[in-house]
Amino acid sequence: MKLLRYGAPGKEKPGGLDADGNLRDLSSHVPDIAGDVLLPDSLSHLKALDFAALPRVEGNVRLGPCVGGTGKFICIGLNYSDHAAETGATVPPEPIIFMKATSAIVGPNDTIEIPRDALKTDWEVELGVVIGKTAKYVSERDAMDHVAGYCVINDVSERAFQAEREGQWTKGKSADTFGPTGPWLVSADEIPDPQALRLWLEVNGHRYQNGSTATMVYGVRYLVAYLSRFMSLQPGDIISTGTPPGVGLGQKPPVYLKPGDVVTLGIEGLGNQRQDVVQG
Amino acid sequence: MKLLRYGAPGKEKPGGLDADGNLRDLSSHVPDIAGDVLLPDSLSHLKALDFAALPRVEGNVRLGPCVGGTGKFICIGLNYSDHAAETGATVPPEPIIFMKATSAIVGPNDTIEIPRDALKTDWEVELGVVIGKTAKYVSERDAMDHVAGYCVINDVSERAFQAEREGQWTKGKSADTFGPTGPWLVSADEIPDPQALRLWLEVNGHRYQNGSTATMVYGVRYLVAYLSRFMSLQPGDIISTGTPPGVGLGQKPPVYLKPGDVVTLGIEGLGNQRQDVVQG
Repeated sequence: MKLLRYGAPGKEKPGGLDADGNLRDLSSHVPDIAGDVLLPDSLSHLKALDFAALPRVEGNVRLGPCVGGTGKFICIGLNYSDHAAETGATVPPEPIIFMKATSAIVGPNDTIEIPRDALKTDWEVELGVVIGKTAKYVSERDAMDHVAGYCVINDVSERAFQAEREGQWTKGKSADTFGPTGPWLVSADEIPDPQALRLWLEVNGHRYQNGSTATMVYGVRYLVAYLSRFMSLQPGDIISTGTPPGVGLGQKPPVYLKPGDVVTLGIEGLGNQRQDVVQG
Repeated sequence: MKLLRYGAPGKEKPGGLDADGNLRDLSSHVPDIAGDVLLPDSLSHLKALDFAALPRVEGNVRLGPCVGGTGKFICIGLNYSDHAAETGATVPPEPIIFMKATSAIVGPNDTIEIPRDALKTDWEVELGVVIGKTAKYVSERDAMDHVAGYCVINDVSERAFQAEREGQWTKGKSADTFGPTGPWLVSADEIPDPQALRLWLEVNGHRYQNGSTATMVYGVRYLVAYLSRFMSLQPGDIISTGTPPGVGLGQKPPVYLKPGDVVTLGIEGLGNQRQDVVQG
């Protein structure tokens, strides 16, 4: 099942894709793709619907972030061994956790705004994990019961803000538009193995990232259990699980985003994103 | 004007204190102390009400966090020069930003749960700044127009999680109950100079922190403007502005919280908090 949100920013309606890839309106069944709608029983109810019988959404509508009401946007740092190497870092002995501001979340095809005073705005294709049930001190065995599904995330990052402006990566991760999320929330039953997904990212048609979640250091199951020991996770929270090699910082010489660039990215089974880059 | 939220966790109603310190119900006027209710025009409307004529809330009700719907809980690190010294750090040349999970927010007198596997759970009395109007690239001159008011925050911190468990302070700042907030949101007009407030914290009646916001390195006006260059700030967002000397980590030898401890803290004009410490 592929769930989504469509319409103007902040006024998105819930929707889904039918078997033919048509956008269908779910607003007669749920208020939003958010919160309690992500609970296992609620998702089971939605899966039982005949999406093809729902009202079709016509025209070229904007897609919003595929999940609403996100309380926490949690990111895992240096979670691919080959990405750690390209940034000059070593693989950490346990996961690095940082936060993106939830106000950075935008739709999958919205523009990326380079912040004022930015010097090194970079890209990171990442597998997003959307929480579907509160998790606190959960075991690895039970961890996957708390996952509603998966989505594509571009963890846009200003490296100078992140690493050269004193203290804590969140400073370079949180600008408005730095969290394109979607196009779809793909329910977990459609992704039997989240550690076997190809993921890629291109800038102006040049492929910079071309990896697989198979090379993650800490997998989804481990991360959900691990995080739940440091903070509780609620429905709608997003875990962005780190990026494979090929970020701009890792190029020789480094390459960063500039106004006019076009970023495209995708993950196997989870759909694609496309962002125009503008000056903020 | 002192605004507050009272009732069971997650079901708080809006309220306020009248001139005699009685709790009054505001739910016939606003849905919550959150979001657009914090906008300048809305606060002006509330200020014009005769609180003494509102329904009185009787009995010993629980106070919730004084602001609801917080999208970001942003903290400033090492923002008092004498606190930086006690932790062995130097004053940073620009503000250190980190995030607490919004799921850590609790009422001012709720219990603090020491997380499982915690070793060094510590306290930090801090001046909280509540945003009242969206701020993005605001100047220092205009910054204070975006502040709805102030509150007391205990930035509870697990030092081992924060500093000894790999990467990024958020890991030790985000456990459930690690963000007591309140008792009141005191509107900005009642605090003409946020840089001249005494603040203190005691554990079991022993005074550990006894400072003044006068010794902040980066003041409220500067912080609002500074943060707005890295992320947009929305109504209900909280900035916790750092702690003065006297945290447990700074004692010789260090002192940390244990089950049974009682933490009391307060800021001049903003009220007091009291937390019982339990094992989570």
